[in-house]
Amino acid sequence: METVAIFGVGLIGGSFALALRKAGFTGRIIGVSSEPSVRAALDRNIIDEALPTRAAAAQADLLYLSQPIHKIAECLGELDAWVQPGALITDAGSTKKLIVQTASQKITRAGFLGGHPMAGRERRGVEAAEADLFQGRPYLLTPRSPADLDHPAARDFLDWIPRIGSFPIILDADTHDKTVALTSHLPQLASSALAALLEERLELPTRVYGPALVDSTRLALSSFDIWGDIFDTNRDAIGLALESYIAKLEEFRTALGGTLDKPPGAPSLRRGFDAGSRFAARLRDVT
Amino acid sequence: METVAIFGVGLIGGSFALALRKAGFTGRIIGVSSEPSVRAALDRNIIDEALPTRAAAAQADLLYLSQPIHKIAECLGELDAWVQPGALITDAGSTKKLIVQTASQKITRAGFLGGHPMAGRERRGVEAAEADLFQGRPYLLTPRSPADLDHPAARDFLDWIPRIGSFPIILDADTHDKTVALTSHLPQLASSALAALLEERLELPTRVYGPALVDSTRLALSSFDIWGDIFDTNRDAIGLALESYIAKLEEFRTALGGTLDKPPGAPSLRRGFDAGSRFAARLRDVT
Repeated sequence: METVAIFGVGLIGGSFALALRKAGFTGRIIGVSSEPSVRAALDRNIIDEALPTRAAAAQADLLYLSQPIHKIAECLGELDAWVQPGALITDAGSTKKLIVQTASQKITRAGFLGGHPMAGRERRGVEAAEADLFQGRPYLLTPRSPADLDHPAARDFLDWIPRIGSFPIILDADTHDKTVALTSHLPQLASSALAALLEERLELPTRVYGPALVDSTRLALSSFDIWGDIFDTNRDAIGLALESYIAKLEEFRTALGGTLDKPPGAPSLRRGFDAGSRFAARLRDVT
Repeated sequence: METVAIFGVGLIGGSFALALRKAGFTGRIIGVSSEPSVRAALDRNIIDEALPTRAAAAQADLLYLSQPIHKIAECLGELDAWVQPGALITDAGSTKKLIVQTASQKITRAGFLGGHPMAGRERRGVEAAEADLFQGRPYLLTPRSPADLDHPAARDFLDWIPRIGSFPIILDADTHDKTVALTSHLPQLASSALAALLEERLELPTRVYGPALVDSTRLALSSFDIWGDIFDTNRDAIGLALESYIAKLEEFRTALGGTLDKPPGAPSLRRGFDAGSRFAARLRDVT
């Protein structure tokens, strides 16, 4: 791997470039992005040069697509004509079914491997990029078949994942999208809905809150400009996740109306609450 | 204020003692608590001595009740016989209606002022107590009438609130309970329900999650031993808050099924999401 082209030099693309450098990558890093992002990335020495799509695609042996999801799908439609045979195209999109399907239709001349580094910050853009963003975080990979992982350029890319502090998890695109609907998209909507309700209900400025509310609304700070594409490309799984969450809240509401401590077997708020505590503790055990 | 008796030397009671000391309180601090709490509090010099209820009540000019809510109500029933006329009884319970009503019935010989410092940590017990727990946090006070604030011992107590880094907010018990149902109890249940759902749905250990899930399940770590009394004494307001939250999530789910960007006036996921972002940002502006 000698030349990496990053398409969309924002938080993730910029952090990937910084992480590669920190891990000892000495090749060239090309940025393909908007004028302000390119300027900021050049200023911070995150990329070596900026090129248009065609020139970057023709020179890179790793093409790293880190734009919003629909932009990635659009870009996949353009790259096949220019990409070097033997190169790998990968992406960092937060949903995988649409992207993997699009790649299967559009990419014929190079390798493709769908990816999703589960890392992020509230702040967006290349200004927020940092070399340690992927440290300790999973790097999800969604090969269509084992052959995707065996492509020589894919093996080169996979070698860099532990070097940037991340660990790979292999799963298919459908399982990916259903799982992150529960572990990422639902928490986002739960926080946004809570904050949207309070926007209606509370007279601000209020100071009648504790640290819990600050924590609970942190995700709600995120921008719909990022999340719109995620919701749009994972509607079914997110719809089911929301339905289950609403059912669980209804269960809590019903239990709240009765005796809180019920005999074993009856639904009780204590049991639901304790199940949540157990999950939260186990999550931290494996972290 | 020369002698303070803390009933229930746990996270809040222990922190209040430490905060008073740090703020320059040179009087005596008595602890009334379980054997292990008392031992830990003496070991850390959080209290000067441990006494049983009756002896502590007879000597203190501030009686600080920081047990679980039902225990506070029970304790109020015992104190009136022993308390010094001229002393103030205050409490740190997270709901106020039951406690304020109980105090009105039971306390005839001393002053009473309901309180609720909005501060906390996931860790419980006197071991987790810290002098800065109240720093920058609101101290809610729920007088039954302005006279509660004018009692000489209440004025003494109120002088200490800014000294421990907190700021007072005066509101009636009913408004208190309705407001914290939205800003504290609902966020807790939203986190617990999310974690309880994932406990059912995810095969653990899973590593397919990012920092968002860790944040979203932090509150779920809390213990029902603390929260049971809160839910029990604020059922109506919490029930309504849950109902509104479920309605907001249903609104999001419906919007997710259609076009995400709708013309102005139509409900859209973008508009709901953006309302949440606005609230989260405004909350941080006033912090």
